[in-house]
Amino acid sequence: MGSQSEGTMPSCEILSIGTELLLGQILNTNSQFLSEELAAIGINCYFQTTIGDNVERIKFSMKQALNRADILLITGGLGPTADDLTTECLAETLGVGMIFDATVMERIESFFQTRGVPMPESNRKQALRPEGSDLLPNPRGTAPGDLWCITPDLLRKAGITNPESERIVMTFPGVPGEMKAMWRETAVPYLTKHYESKVFWSCDLKHYGIGESALAEKYAHLLDMSNPTVAPYAGSGECKLRVTARAGTIAEAENLAKPVIDEIISASGTLFYGRNDDTLEVVVGRLLTERKLTIAVAESCTGGLVSKRLTDVPGSSNYIHLNVVTYADDMKERILGVRHETLIKDGAVSTQCVKEMAEGVKKFAAADVGLSISGIAGPGGGTEEKPVGLVYLGLSHERGTDIRKLTLPAHITRQEIRHRSASEALNMVRLHLLQNS
Amino acid sequence: MGSQSEGTMPSCEILSIGTELLLGQILNTNSQFLSEELAAIGINCYFQTTIGDNVERIKFSMKQALNRADILLITGGLGPTADDLTTECLAETLGVGMIFDATVMERIESFFQTRGVPMPESNRKQALRPEGSDLLPNPRGTAPGDLWCITPDLLRKAGITNPESERIVMTFPGVPGEMKAMWRETAVPYLTKHYESKVFWSCDLKHYGIGESALAEKYAHLLDMSNPTVAPYAGSGECKLRVTARAGTIAEAENLAKPVIDEIISASGTLFYGRNDDTLEVVVGRLLTERKLTIAVAESCTGGLVSKRLTDVPGSSNYIHLNVVTYADDMKERILGVRHETLIKDGAVSTQCVKEMAEGVKKFAAADVGLSISGIAGPGGGTEEKPVGLVYLGLSHERGTDIRKLTLPAHITRQEIRHRSASEALNMVRLHLLQNS
Repeated sequence: MGSQSEGTMPSCEILSIGTELLLGQILNTNSQFLSEELAAIGINCYFQTTIGDNVERIKFSMKQALNRADILLITGGLGPTADDLTTECLAETLGVGMIFDATVMERIESFFQTRGVPMPESNRKQALRPEGSDLLPNPRGTAPGDLWCITPDLLRKAGITNPESERIVMTFPGVPGEMKAMWRETAVPYLTKHYESKVFWSCDLKHYGIGESALAEKYAHLLDMSNPTVAPYAGSGECKLRVTARAGTIAEAENLAKPVIDEIISASGTLFYGRNDDTLEVVVGRLLTERKLTIAVAESCTGGLVSKRLTDVPGSSNYIHLNVVTYADDMKERILGVRHETLIKDGAVSTQCVKEMAEGVKKFAAADVGLSISGIAGPGGGTEEKPVGLVYLGLSHERGTDIRKLTLPAHITRQEIRHRSASEALNMVRLHLLQNS
Repeated sequence: MGSQSEGTMPSCEILSIGTELLLGQILNTNSQFLSEELAAIGINCYFQTTIGDNVERIKFSMKQALNRADILLITGGLGPTADDLTTECLAETLGVGMIFDATVMERIESFFQTRGVPMPESNRKQALRPEGSDLLPNPRGTAPGDLWCITPDLLRKAGITNPESERIVMTFPGVPGEMKAMWRETAVPYLTKHYESKVFWSCDLKHYGIGESALAEKYAHLLDMSNPTVAPYAGSGECKLRVTARAGTIAEAENLAKPVIDEIISASGTLFYGRNDDTLEVVVGRLLTERKLTIAVAESCTGGLVSKRLTDVPGSSNYIHLNVVTYADDMKERILGVRHETLIKDGAVSTQCVKEMAEGVKKFAAADVGLSISGIAGPGGGTEEKPVGLVYLGLSHERGTDIRKLTLPAHITRQEIRHRSASEALNMVRLHLLQNS
């Protein structure tokens, strides 16, 4: 899903530098992060290039990118070793010298001092940057980046195509956490200010229980808007709509987006579950906390995954006291009180079994809500009657016990069956809590 | 870690096509997979480029790659829609027409027939490929790829630099599962046969309990060998050595690698835990199965993660009957029999508590081995005496109970603290089982 419009908006290229990327030792998550961020602030990205620590190829790629795009974002190659070539190659590509920034040097020295280790001499090179460029501060590490608005005059001297319009170059370390902090704290404000003095504000509206194409169809009338823009994104069994607005101030952009956000939230109903960093487990945790309820989970086929996801959330010990993974039938009997007859007659993967499991774990843990899961995650263990992908969910609460049956496609992996079952279970809890507020 | 040598080996470029990549909607895992695979068979990759669904930019990038490299691997753009441009752009770049492959068409039609849905007319284009190219079969989906050994004559006509040496072009769908199957089943045998008629064979030797630089130092004398080659790779708290040999046949290559593999396994001792797809949980499962032992886990701070990882392994229900997540103190008392006095005096994060938890869960589940974890995963809940990152592990077995104390760095995230604690716990079980065979 998604398209790019070639209009008056600036264009950008991403250059990732590092032999470890070419050897496949590292997954290039930086490019994805920057791509998504660029799309959100309305900057088109047409080329992404990955190269190793090689002077000729770095300089070639820098020049090619400057010939084609308004903005060049470079990640990697800012470290202190001989393999770190980004800064010097950038200076050479534009035909300028390097300046030494004493303030940066002091900051690097104090970084080592506070750790009580001597600074290797090689770190001095991290205080150098191309003449005429500015500092792109790195709040999280020693290596700062460059922020360089290159003038037509300098572009002309360096033999860059179309030198009339200035170019923006930014360099970032390859470490994702440092790159992201620098991007958010300095690069985004700079770019939004530089281009049309507009700021961008965006919000992800996360949905569960509807596919990406159905979501796109439902909101087809919004997808062609220009400000705010609305774009669907698919994830693992979930999807989201990103609403992005552009205006003179953040508050104005937010105001511009608000009616669209309100419309979507209202029309999506319970298909909408949260914003931005919300996950199903975060939302379930929030609802449990608000309603002062506790939950206990009895898992079979998911083997602890639901418990793991619920406890990924800081503070989850406030509403979870006990979860159990009753993998064996006798444990379902002994701990959860599932009747022997149920296991013999209906089997562990059945409506009756998850009903008794949910009721049993609720009682055993003295919780307000009991959740149970039993199914066949595969790859073995499936029969014609109960194939791989068959999963039952049980939810016991003060007014009774609800059951859901899932029939997941048998060709997906054990991990996917477990993940989707866990998501469905968490969503079942969410819907229950919403309906019983 | 890792370096590239520019010698007589062929060079390759990877071209990833798809606007969804440029928008950041998809993480480019294909490039990493192919990079790692190319490194393993001794083919250098100097450039990786990502572009959108745009005819001009696709043709420009194809021609540039053919000018620079011996091999061009292209992923994406093989689908049936108007946005899927790879095949026609490739034909146009080389100035040839397209041929219609009736056999491919039949295969696509039968794919739709077996699913009982009519084939959209647009799927016909998937049966087209550049004149002179061969089929690169896709065992997992409808869209096959092209495998094209382009002759000097054709390269000359198309205006490619250095047309004397032929070029190999392969196209793959963007779907990772299909691409990987095609790569392994057709591309690798073809490339190893085409270049020097040598085959490559590699084996990853996975280690736990030693860092990447310490591992590289320990085996420094092996890292400069040329056949087999040995290269270290770091993962999340783990690392591996990849041994790759090149020879006339797979058996010869394996024989060449064997002495080096034997040397490493012998010198690494219990730091070595498994090969290739082995994980700590797979190895623990294998050891438990061999020794006909069962395990039960009582988790606190990891909240089900250890249970989730152990049950990721198919067949784990043979050695796991019950795991519990006793998040609340009273559940530790009630289910595991942790003494009230222990919780008052030592607290839940203590040597004494994990000892009683491990013994308690072993007894409660009637298992042979009881594993327990209690710690402070953060971000809240830390004190000066018991900071975030403090984790205790307990392992109860037939001859007593072992305890380990971990002091993980407080600045890592809750998720990392949980992941590393779980890995340390699994490794503790592994070492115990190895020492008690």
